[in-house]
Amino acid sequence: MKNPLNDVWAAGRSVLNGWLSIGSPFTAEIMASQGFDSLTIDGQHGALDYSALLPMLQALRGRGPVVFARVPWRDPTWVMKFLDAGALGIICPMVNSRAQAEEFVSYMRYPPLGQRSYGPTRAAYAYPGYGTTANEAVLAFAMIETAEAMHNLEEIAATPGLDGLYVGPADLSIGISNGRLAPGFDRREPEVMDAQQRIAEAARANGIHAALHCGSAEYAAEALGWGYDMVTVGGDSRFLAEAAGATVTRFRTLTDTGRAGTATEGY
Amino acid sequence: MKNPLNDVWAAGRSVLNGWLSIGSPFTAEIMASQGFDSLTIDGQHGALDYSALLPMLQALRGRGPVVFARVPWRDPTWVMKFLDAGALGIICPMVNSRAQAEEFVSYMRYPPLGQRSYGPTRAAYAYPGYGTTANEAVLAFAMIETAEAMHNLEEIAATPGLDGLYVGPADLSIGISNGRLAPGFDRREPEVMDAQQRIAEAARANGIHAALHCGSAEYAAEALGWGYDMVTVGGDSRFLAEAAGATVTRFRTLTDTGRAGTATEGY
Amino acid sequence: MKNPLNDVWAAGRSVLNGWLSIGSPFTAEIMASQGFDSLTIDGQHGALDYSALLPMLQALRGRGPVVFARVPWRDPTWVMKFLDAGALGIICPMVNSRAQAEEFVSYMRYPPLGQRSYGPTRAAYAYPGYGTTANEAVLAFAMIETAEAMHNLEEIAATPGLDGLYVGPADLSIGISNGRLAPGFDRREPEVMDAQQRIAEAARANGIHAALHCGSAEYAAEALGWGYDMVTVGGDSRFLAEAAGATVTRFRTLTDTGRAGTATEGY
Amino acid sequence: MKNPLNDVWAAGRSVLNGWLSIGSPFTAEIMASQGFDSLTIDGQHGALDYSALLPMLQALRGRGPVVFARVPWRDPTWVMKFLDAGALGIICPMVNSRAQAEEFVSYMRYPPLGQRSYGPTRAAYAYPGYGTTANEAVLAFAMIETAEAMHNLEEIAATPGLDGLYVGPADLSIGISNGRLAPGFDRREPEVMDAQQRIAEAARANGIHAALHCGSAEYAAEALGWGYDMVTVGGDSRFLAEAAGATVTRFRTLTDTGRAGTATEGY
Amino acid sequence: MKNPLNDVWAAGRSVLNGWLSIGSPFTAEIMASQGFDSLTIDGQHGALDYSALLPMLQALRGRGPVVFARVPWRDPTWVMKFLDAGALGIICPMVNSRAQAEEFVSYMRYPPLGQRSYGPTRAAYAYPGYGTTANEAVLAFAMIETAEAMHNLEEIAATPGLDGLYVGPADLSIGISNGRLAPGFDRREPEVMDAQQRIAEAARANGIHAALHCGSAEYAAEALGWGYDMVTVGGDSRFLAEAAGATVTRFRTLTDTGRAGTATEGY
Amino acid sequence: MKNPLNDVWAAGRSVLNGWLSIGSPFTAEIMASQGFDSLTIDGQHGALDYSALLPMLQALRGRGPVVFARVPWRDPTWVMKFLDAGALGIICPMVNSRAQAEEFVSYMRYPPLGQRSYGPTRAAYAYPGYGTTANEAVLAFAMIETAEAMHNLEEIAATPGLDGLYVGPADLSIGISNGRLAPGFDRREPEVMDAQQRIAEAARANGIHAALHCGSAEYAAEALGWGYDMVTVGGDSRFLAEAAGATVTRFRTLTDTGRAGTATEGY
Repeated sequence: MKNPLNDVWAAGRSVLNGWLSIGSPFTAEIMASQGFDSLTIDGQHGALDYSALLPMLQALRGRGPVVFARVPWRDPTWVMKFLDAGALGIICPMVNSRAQAEEFVSYMRYPPLGQRSYGPTRAAYAYPGYGTTANEAVLAFAMIETAEAMHNLEEIAATPGLDGLYVGPADLSIGISNGRLAPGFDRREPEVMDAQQRIAEAARANGIHAALHCGSAEYAAEALGWGYDMVTVGGDSRFLAEAAGATVTRFRTLTDTGRAGTATEGY
Repeated sequence: MKNPLNDVWAAGRSVLNGWLSIGSPFTAEIMASQGFDSLTIDGQHGALDYSALLPMLQALRGRGPVVFARVPWRDPTWVMKFLDAGALGIICPMVNSRAQAEEFVSYMRYPPLGQRSYGPTRAAYAYPGYGTTANEAVLAFAMIETAEAMHNLEEIAATPGLDGLYVGPADLSIGISNGRLAPGFDRREPEVMDAQQRIAEAARANGIHAALHCGSAEYAAEALGWGYDMVTVGGDSRFLAEAAGATVTRFRTLTDTGRAGTATEGY
Repeated sequence: MKNPLNDVWAAGRSVLNGWLSIGSPFTAEIMASQGFDSLTIDGQHGALDYSALLPMLQALRGRGPVVFARVPWRDPTWVMKFLDAGALGIICPMVNSRAQAEEFVSYMRYPPLGQRSYGPTRAAYAYPGYGTTANEAVLAFAMIETAEAMHNLEEIAATPGLDGLYVGPADLSIGISNGRLAPGFDRREPEVMDAQQRIAEAARANGIHAALHCGSAEYAAEALGWGYDMVTVGGDSRFLAEAAGATVTRFRTLTDTGRAGTATEGY
Repeated sequence: MKNPLNDVWAAGRSVLNGWLSIGSPFTAEIMASQGFDSLTIDGQHGALDYSALLPMLQALRGRGPVVFARVPWRDPTWVMKFLDAGALGIICPMVNSRAQAEEFVSYMRYPPLGQRSYGPTRAAYAYPGYGTTANEAVLAFAMIETAEAMHNLEEIAATPGLDGLYVGPADLSIGISNGRLAPGFDRREPEVMDAQQRIAEAARANGIHAALHCGSAEYAAEALGWGYDMVTVGGDSRFLAEAAGATVTRFRTLTDTGRAGTATEGY
Repeated sequence: MKNPLNDVWAAGRSVLNGWLSIGSPFTAEIMASQGFDSLTIDGQHGALDYSALLPMLQALRGRGPVVFARVPWRDPTWVMKFLDAGALGIICPMVNSRAQAEEFVSYMRYPPLGQRSYGPTRAAYAYPGYGTTANEAVLAFAMIETAEAMHNLEEIAATPGLDGLYVGPADLSIGISNGRLAPGFDRREPEVMDAQQRIAEAARANGIHAALHCGSAEYAAEALGWGYDMVTVGGDSRFLAEAAGATVTRFRTLTDTGRAGTATEGY
Repeated sequence: MKNPLNDVWAAGRSVLNGWLSIGSPFTAEIMASQGFDSLTIDGQHGALDYSALLPMLQALRGRGPVVFARVPWRDPTWVMKFLDAGALGIICPMVNSRAQAEEFVSYMRYPPLGQRSYGPTRAAYAYPGYGTTANEAVLAFAMIETAEAMHNLEEIAATPGLDGLYVGPADLSIGISNGRLAPGFDRREPEVMDAQQRIAEAARANGIHAALHCGSAEYAAEALGWGYDMVTVGGDSRFLAEAAGATVTRFRTLTDTGRAGTATEGY
């Protein structure tokens, strides 16, 4: 087993990632048909847990995109269970110090590289040869999203065994401004732009990857120029909401009607 | 309990319906926030059954849109279980004759109007007063989608207790052409246009509703002019696929990249 | 494998049945601890289907009460799947004629007694010796709940292989009055009392059992005197609602408060 | 979004809470119809986890009662996931020191008030305006249930951002007596009464709420006089068990029968 | 989309089928790794329904074996829903006459070949080009398992559009002997051997396939010589039971111990 | 409630344990019929979480084998939730020091023995008298699987309240060799044999139990001679894979065919 993304990066190309917040194998299949290089199942803020993640990983097996999972917290239960379930990469939120980064990485690798417990019960059926190749194939991404993490950025980026830094602009903006900036994607505030730039540079300086969560194809395309080699361009729940909402609005405009329903609270 | 859609129609307005093919209460909630007047859970071709429909109905309770369900077949099990679960309308596929229409309607109503068995175990918690008002509140829509049904159209439309005719253009096109026309929405072939027109007229002549499944807001808006007073403008799985696919394409175009992944079959 | 209820009846005693409308193995376990002789999982009006019934049967195995299941309709899919899942008795709604009764019974028994298909995949793990004893052990109860069924009562009761008649007073009252009487349990109207009496007598005359769905222990106790040898005295959803509602009312009375909440629709 | 309970308390009234230990959206709906001001889904001792809690929150949306969730432990995964799923209040067990209380509160609030990570994926569809109002709307209740917590009571109660203290008499009785007192509700032992009194006073002295888990309406009503402004008067599993058990007993008494079943272990 | 099995047969080879009675995507994945040419999800006697079948089909996509599903009965709901979910072949139980065979086949094909309703919502994501190729790709197998079916064998085998006959020896043995023969696999009784032979010949005479459900590799290998070109050599539940049981027995023998446990009924 | 295993051991016999890695109540039932003394649901490496473990425990209730659960990590959430769900023993991975062992044990017992929170909501329905007997009945097994744990072996084994040591040879081999030895069962390397021996002796010296995870009946039988009084002889996923694979191989050999399928990736 090899992680195909390593070949993508080795060839000098970037990775286009999609985001899965809906706990459904069918929406996962739909997303898997759209041309993403990777998909990330969000175990933190997504409306799902392990019991939904497992059939999603099963449905995504062999469909093309490499599958990451975001764990809800820096917790060995989630890192190890999500790996055993078959995720080929883990994105870990709120990695704020070198010690936390080392802890996270240790959960990702079997000894001597780490302390991951052995037992890839399902992963071994998904990926022949898993046991002997997992240490090289699985990717560890730490999220940089607080002022503390920015302070420790270089130390974190230099953590042995870490494969990349992942930037969530909502928490990062809140974090570096101590709540002054509102959450949101595709930021243009100088301090956020600066932080995003520093993170990409710290990654490159340490020979690891930099990934940015974006809200549009345009911003994501621009981010490649800043040194990011992995970009997320949207998630299932927002795709669905925006497309449905746009169609309703178009119909209402064409027919010059507002919402037809009278108050329906009473039924 | 009243069915709010009856007030909408009584006020001379039309109903904008959304379609749910994904078996997930969360996608149902997302769709419920987009401004549709009604939503239909597709128990026939949707990737879901009763066990998914029930929590979807629970999540949709009180969210605004009135909820229909399409049954997989003209079968008392599904009509009665979907009603007991709380659907306020049933769309029944493949109603091809007056006898079939009467059979369908009989499953929808308690005696003396029909043969529905009494026991609204969950519906009674969703809609206070359900037992005494359900016969008036629940809506029965028969799908016209075969040559045989077109032949019996007027008789079907005149079935006592039937509330409307629902047109699925994919099966209708296949059906009236005996497989010559390909499936699809938003038809312009004269024979399909004609069939759609005849159905709307048959509905109006019998004082019942006509609903058309459309693939775009534009076609749906046009259909109102043909006598349809309920139009479906898209479904969750297509909204998701199209929005995600469009974003990927935009990114690939902006960055002048094709799919980055090398062959991933081998991992 | 023997059906323990046959011993209960052989000893001249009656069977106290509880009703399960909630699709949860845990509520099934709670009900199993209350001293019922049997429990019936309601696949018709209960808020559940096969996917919920299966783990309920698994949780109820060996807990004391013998488990019946009510099928949603006189349909071989449900009769055979519910039996294969481990139900030791089937209650079939809307058996209105001798032909329908024979059809129902035929689904319950392996040849030469019937046309049940062989494959007790799960039942064989629940009941050692299932294959050779099921024909004798599983109980077939037909529901008498329409005017037509009352007309054909004696013929139905004489159906070879039928083990009992089950009376649901809600549908029976609606059915024999063509919708004039409201649904409900524990009826006192003369025509319902008379029908209930006739059913018990028809059962006795044919050497089969008579079961009555009741809403209170008092009425159930009285029914034993009418010839019923199986009585249902309430169901999980009503037990829960009534007990919770009574406690809230008691608190409101003690504290002289109405519902504390201001309008919560807006949050 | 506002938390309606804040208005209830502002008006000088108390909150009547119900408890959900059964992992079922349907039992949640039944409980939601009984007149409680709030309901708490028990993620600690309830027979449920996140995968059951999510559809329960969806079914409870807009049904009247405000929904709390108890987390299984003082763990950021649960606090943040239960909030993201839509709980408007969190009850945290085993808060034994000021440091633990501060830790718990920090998981509840976005910066600058805390360290909650941003991403209310489902909550944003349940409560428009969630992102900007959640910090004020969600309620943080710490459970006081050990001798250590009693020792640190005043410090805990003074924790900035804490909204209330919740008392579970079973663990509290065990905890303050080091296992000498048996678990149970509605205590009258002087040391428990005293502890309950001290907790209510500590809450009031710090301008926060005091909630008591009770086993009867009578005790709950009495507790309002001790300074408690939120009382729990029972849970779904006990309501069901007690009501079913009482009906069985009544029937057995009326008919002078014991349990009818002979030994059923052998079938 | 093509059905790979057609190439297997065109090359003069036979198909080795495995049977799935456990409703679990993980056991499906395990079975998919063992070298079967096809796997059949048993919706009739398996401990599963549509809600389990769907994630199993998703997990099996692209894993090698072609996936069949057995429907619980000759019912359009199941045939069409199992196809829409992605099954590439349907095995239909209890096809006893030409009319029943025609009815079954009609549910399998879009017009003009049949009456299948159009809407491959999930199948279209699993198999690009599904809509235009499904009529040729999906395989229809009718089960011959009663005396009546044997009487009508040649007529059934000649049904246009039917792709094969599937033999379940348990029901067949019971059926042709009217219950005299016990159920079981790998039969040697002359009348069963004769019936099995006649079925293979009827298939060959009509240019369709013959499949036999076997209990061992030895019998299955032998069956190829009788004209069968598809053989089932065991199912997940029996594989698991026999392997576990054999290991326990070996341990008990090696250690000269019986079951260690004293009676555990009382705990 | 007593734990029947204590009687087994008191009688000088050993315990034969089976392993459950598949999240299915039906596979659990199958395993429960094979003659094991105990079964362990693997919440760590098994493809399951709490939502699967709960119905498995319900299905296993009263079936004979005593049920253990392995928690994913030394975390109070899992220890307490798995106990509340009804596990009668907990196996805790990665117990590397006396402090960790004490922490683990503290989660297992109510005060004054530990800090387990009281609320056996489901367990109380499974085991009458649970509350007062659980502290004695539930078994705490710590896994020894690292070099650090071997260093602290005697201290760990002497932890008050600990009932046994459980050896997983895969992690133990990796751990004591710092990754030099490959994972696997039934080890013969001198350093692993020596570690296994030392663990059994440490257990015996402290009057607690020693359990070994084995891959065959032969090795397990041998381990009894080394002082182990509990042995695991295989798990559901491996039983299934090996039995199915062996049958396929046998058929391929008998028929002199390789895998029949041509490349199926393209369909």
